[in-house]
Amino acid sequence: VICTVLGNGGFGTAFALLSHRAGHRVRLWGHDPEYTAELARTRQNPRYLPGVELPREVQVGADAKPALARAEVVVLAIPTQHLRSVLTAVQAQVPRGVPVLSLAKGLEQGTALRPSEVAALATGGRNPVLALSGPSHAEEVARDLPTAVVLAGSDDWHAARLQDQFATPRFRIYRHRDLLGVEIAGALKNVIALAAGIAEGLGFGDNSKAALLSRGIVEIARYGRARGAEPETFFGLAGVGDLAVTAFSVHGRNRAFGVRIGRGETLAQILSSERRVAEGVWTSRVVRDQARSLGIEMPICEAVCGVLHEGLPAPVGVQRLMERDPKSEELG
Amino acid sequence: VICTVLGNGGFGTAFALLSHRAGHRVRLWGHDPEYTAELARTRQNPRYLPGVELPREVQVGADAKPALARAEVVVLAIPTQHLRSVLTAVQAQVPRGVPVLSLAKGLEQGTALRPSEVAALATGGRNPVLALSGPSHAEEVARDLPTAVVLAGSDDWHAARLQDQFATPRFRIYRHRDLLGVEIAGALKNVIALAAGIAEGLGFGDNSKAALLSRGIVEIARYGRARGAEPETFFGLAGVGDLAVTAFSVHGRNRAFGVRIGRGETLAQILSSERRVAEGVWTSRVVRDQARSLGIEMPICEAVCGVLHEGLPAPVGVQRLMERDPKSEELG
Repeated sequence: VICTVLGNGGFGTAFALLSHRAGHRVRLWGHDPEYTAELARTRQNPRYLPGVELPREVQVGADAKPALARAEVVVLAIPTQHLRSVLTAVQAQVPRGVPVLSLAKGLEQGTALRPSEVAALATGGRNPVLALSGPSHAEEVARDLPTAVVLAGSDDWHAARLQDQFATPRFRIYRHRDLLGVEIAGALKNVIALAAGIAEGLGFGDNSKAALLSRGIVEIARYGRARGAEPETFFGLAGVGDLAVTAFSVHGRNRAFGVRIGRGETLAQILSSERRVAEGVWTSRVVRDQARSLGIEMPICEAVCGVLHEGLPAPVGVQRLMERDPKSEELG
Repeated sequence: VICTVLGNGGFGTAFALLSHRAGHRVRLWGHDPEYTAELARTRQNPRYLPGVELPREVQVGADAKPALARAEVVVLAIPTQHLRSVLTAVQAQVPRGVPVLSLAKGLEQGTALRPSEVAALATGGRNPVLALSGPSHAEEVARDLPTAVVLAGSDDWHAARLQDQFATPRFRIYRHRDLLGVEIAGALKNVIALAAGIAEGLGFGDNSKAALLSRGIVEIARYGRARGAEPETFFGLAGVGDLAVTAFSVHGRNRAFGVRIGRGETLAQILSSERRVAEGVWTSRVVRDQARSLGIEMPICEAVCGVLHEGLPAPVGVQRLMERDPKSEELG
């Protein structure tokens, strides 16, 4: 099929490579004409996926019209906070009725909407929207290392088709019914990974990180249940699987961001030097505000948000978490 | 209180240090007179916990009688496969009625008993037996890095006392009701960590490892439920928390062992060169045999056992796991 990937960051580029391997005609679109021209010319993505070569068959361009013409699948590899503006700008070119597959893991600031909801709004409800999530670092997907993900969507027929179209022996796709839970898991694991990174930056070890992970997944599940998701979604690939890799892997961007915060940099300092910020930075605030208004107890999210956005010193924030002292382990 | 730690490996030594910090009179006993004398003389444990100094107040010795005399808590830091023989040899010296706290994470070969069951048998039922588990690498506990664990036992009064006696601001102890589940989680996570290590040794990445972790915790929970444990135990500190750290941390012994297997060494080769073998090596066979006889589906455990004990080539074993192909993610 003709597959158009919108967004030429790390995962967009990796997904373009995957689609190419799966036998599709692939177009990789980026919003930045200059950088995209560099990709097209060098067949490399030095900023987001260094060392990986783009096959010639993958068309690369910054012009949405040819990129989306006759597309049969549209993949959204755009950070959550930019999804609405990018998609609104190109939506007229998206062929009506073709499935739109979101790869974003976040919640939109201001609206608290999930990426699939933003996509559905931006395309005017003319396209079925699905989401792919799970432990899938772009660096490894690009190199065809074995990966397993979940694909969720309200539309079973399209979910099954996309599964058939994009699964390869080294990229397993499991269908999942709980789109809401899958997207919540993907968004919130970034916040817990930030906490894990902050603890690491403060000099804490893997025991602390594992404790944060354990309590983090319970916190995510609590939020998810309050929002109507299925609790067991959080104990699968999209939940603990993705959280573990985000919190522990060298590739974890949110973890790495947290480490810098833990070592004493401020959000403002990092923002002034970095092109892109870890998704969890914004998600933490969206979730914290929602959790407060809905009365959901989310101590890790509170602490991360306090440290990132309200000047709470990192050692104090982490100390608060460690001092929370229920006498027995309660889940859910 | 007077706290006697039986076993001067890494975790035994770390727990002795923790007990000392918690204000107790600590005796650290080891079965090897020569090595134990070296510890006593140098105040170091170079083989299992290099670089950590034992305070003078911690008494170190290989004579069980003085070590256990008037002990008020007895801590078992002995590998599961040696627990019965060691404890049987010294049980006459264990003061009647004092709590015995097991730190072991495995199942006994031949009997499939849990460490607390072995301990109860070996002490003739004269002592309450409890277990401590969770993500707690000795290297980090010894250095007083923040750690959170669970403590489980059928006897609530003793559990609460031990919690009060050994919890510190940097070593949180959560009480847990499900002793069976906590011990199963501790034993089986080692098998999944072996699988993660094997995959790593074969050159797979963190995405694969996270997929194994996700499917592994479901497999552990399935076994646990069949044995009568509470499913949610596996999604707490003793379950996903410990599994994540064992599978991803540089400290993970089972992971590291798996890496060697994945790189092509055989179990026999490693056994001939190593003093100690990762607990999961034996647990994998115990669990596999039980799972078969009880009809519990445990593909990861089957694969690990096949690779370790039956000459199944590691690439084939891992391939089998990756090829298992349910179309949707099913938990439980």
